[in-house]
Amino acid sequence: MIRYGNNAVVGQSGGPTAAINASLAGVINAAVKSSEIGKVYGMANGAAGFMNERLYDLTSLFDGNDTDLALLTNTPGAALGSCRFKLPKPDEDARFYESLFALLKKYEIGYFFYIGGNDSMDTTAKVSMYAMEHGVDINVIGVPKTVDNDLCGTDHTPGFGSAAKYVATVFAELRRDTAVYTQKCVTIVEVMGRDAGWLTASSALSKTKYTEGADLIYLPELPLSYEKVYKDIERVWESHPDVLIAVSEGVRLADGTYIGADSTNLDKFGHVQLSGAAKVLERRIKDKFGCKVRSVELNTPQRCASHIGSLTDITESFGVGSYAVERALCGETGVMAGIVRKSDEPYETEYKTFDIKSIANMVKSVPSEYINNDGNGITEAGLAYLRPLIVGETKPLYDNGIPMHYIFPKL
Amino acid sequence: MIRYGNNAVVGQSGGPTAAINASLAGVINAAVKSSEIGKVYGMANGAAGFMNERLYDLTSLFDGNDTDLALLTNTPGAALGSCRFKLPKPDEDARFYESLFALLKKYEIGYFFYIGGNDSMDTTAKVSMYAMEHGVDINVIGVPKTVDNDLCGTDHTPGFGSAAKYVATVFAELRRDTAVYTQKCVTIVEVMGRDAGWLTASSALSKTKYTEGADLIYLPELPLSYEKVYKDIERVWESHPDVLIAVSEGVRLADGTYIGADSTNLDKFGHVQLSGAAKVLERRIKDKFGCKVRSVELNTPQRCASHIGSLTDITESFGVGSYAVERALCGETGVMAGIVRKSDEPYETEYKTFDIKSIANMVKSVPSEYINNDGNGITEAGLAYLRPLIVGETKPLYDNGIPMHYIFPKL
Repeated sequence: MIRYGNNAVVGQSGGPTAAINASLAGVINAAVKSSEIGKVYGMANGAAGFMNERLYDLTSLFDGNDTDLALLTNTPGAALGSCRFKLPKPDEDARFYESLFALLKKYEIGYFFYIGGNDSMDTTAKVSMYAMEHGVDINVIGVPKTVDNDLCGTDHTPGFGSAAKYVATVFAELRRDTAVYTQKCVTIVEVMGRDAGWLTASSALSKTKYTEGADLIYLPELPLSYEKVYKDIERVWESHPDVLIAVSEGVRLADGTYIGADSTNLDKFGHVQLSGAAKVLERRIKDKFGCKVRSVELNTPQRCASHIGSLTDITESFGVGSYAVERALCGETGVMAGIVRKSDEPYETEYKTFDIKSIANMVKSVPSEYINNDGNGITEAGLAYLRPLIVGETKPLYDNGIPMHYIFPKL
Repeated sequence: MIRYGNNAVVGQSGGPTAAINASLAGVINAAVKSSEIGKVYGMANGAAGFMNERLYDLTSLFDGNDTDLALLTNTPGAALGSCRFKLPKPDEDARFYESLFALLKKYEIGYFFYIGGNDSMDTTAKVSMYAMEHGVDINVIGVPKTVDNDLCGTDHTPGFGSAAKYVATVFAELRRDTAVYTQKCVTIVEVMGRDAGWLTASSALSKTKYTEGADLIYLPELPLSYEKVYKDIERVWESHPDVLIAVSEGVRLADGTYIGADSTNLDKFGHVQLSGAAKVLERRIKDKFGCKVRSVELNTPQRCASHIGSLTDITESFGVGSYAVERALCGETGVMAGIVRKSDEPYETEYKTFDIKSIANMVKSVPSEYINNDGNGITEAGLAYLRPLIVGETKPLYDNGIPMHYIFPKL
């Protein structure tokens, strides 16, 4: 086994979130402070940037600089830059891996951290497998993030809690907005989630002693029937005139077609690009009832609303980053750092690593016991799972009323 | 002159905002504490509800109850309920006014406060005029609110600052989200504002030392040319690949047509209902450049995001409500309470009343000296006007991670 050195490199990949920089800050903090790790590099724009040797010197930027580290922790996006870059299979493109490992050798990398979602865990798996098969002693650890909460293994995914807190807060506020008139009306709010309805389910958290929240919640885990939606709306109207609906962008009809699909529009991983589930429902409901109907697509702010980050989520995201460094120093590789829940109330968790091969390219859906029998709401078991993840408020810093963010200097 | 009594009534009307309840709390607090005012009533659903005698007893609900008053102050929506109800002209429907004044007499109303936008100031004007012409001694005062900031007289409108803070914050956060890739892309964000571009202009506040904010800003005050937009985008690409555009929902072409108009869809006041200015631009820019283009419609959350209320705005909204009561007690009627700015920096204001007839049904647009020569950004004069309005953060209370709101008991 060859060890190239004791430097570390960390990259971010996939869609940005409000918490991925907290995980980055966790990795940087632990790595910079470790006496066993030499230099800490940051990949500009993930693996794609690393291949072009676009690297930040994170040691010089952050060693002893807790002010910027705190700013980075509360900055949305992916501060190092991201990429949508799926690594080839080693047996299909050996030259790619030869170039990659030549660079790892050049920069004397002994620790490789990759923060991202499903595709990034695939990268982590491939790099760690290739290293093991070619006798390279390097600790390759995945650090999860996704607002969709659809990664397997970990109890929940860093980034989800902050997105869920934003969604639940907006539903509580929209409720107050829709409740002002006496006429019958329907408001349909489209929430992110292509295959898993976790974020849409979190709209149920807006039902508290202090607000009524969402009336009807439709997840991609169950097929949608327009006739059923009309009946559900009529039932809600028996108690109040304003109906507030949460619908996942990925909701499908019984025949499997997305209600908001544009099947001609695929991303480079072949995923169907969705748009307009709420718009489609808006038109149908307006045609059916002739009442006032409005659709709201929560869109990108869901994944970058750091101004209302969940303290639980941001703290855990930082913690998972730190833990990844701790496990790398213990010699682990080919694993993803994650969270195990020990108790809902009081909320207790611990960090754990998961074999990356059992996680990559799998999707964790909302289980049926979290969805009510009517298929239009969340059960108490689901609420018990979701509740602790949005607790606590971060305290972002403001400059003249605008949140302050950390921006890396131009390379 | 007949005086019906010394009771007060307050109503809310028009579209809800994040600050209209702060003004309501200001009215309630001052009225309940005044020894000259008897009972304080709240109209459920504005003038329409008052005509059906749907009234809350605000004295019993709030006298000595500062906890609920504080909750109300940070609750979005229109807690009393709102209406879209334009009063007839007195010479066209005398019977309506006879019924209205019979009710004012029945409830011994000496003070009438109406919180709302342009249409509500029209109501205030009509009620006060009718009273004066018919020898009724009642103090009728308008309290302004609108996220659009388009009311005349007052330096700015309660509710605008909080909406502007939300818009500027979301632009700062979207900037971090769009900046993560190296490919050319365009993100178009549609901001509320049918005739006046104040809220869209506030996206310019997201350009600080800590974030780059919006690149291009298009207001309804100037005609839009698609060719000009393409040139503007190409110029931005010379410095960075991600272009962030703010566009008002009310932007028009040179021939006067809304770019996002659906002219078959009118509200009951005859205003054209807009939708999709950003969607139209998205399709055009995608066709022109073939790059990744995304549109985001900020939609209703702009007017109800109390979780990031501007402390300046909420404090002033409460203050304008209190001031309206103070002026009513001094005998004023037929006026709107508002704000006069004495200095930008340090920010200094005072409250003042404005003759309601000079305000109702007028629109205050963004003046040309606030728009840059290229017609795609805001000048330093404009920024100086906008900056103080979003300063300071409110401290909403949270219950298990969800903001707490005040909800009136059912009548």
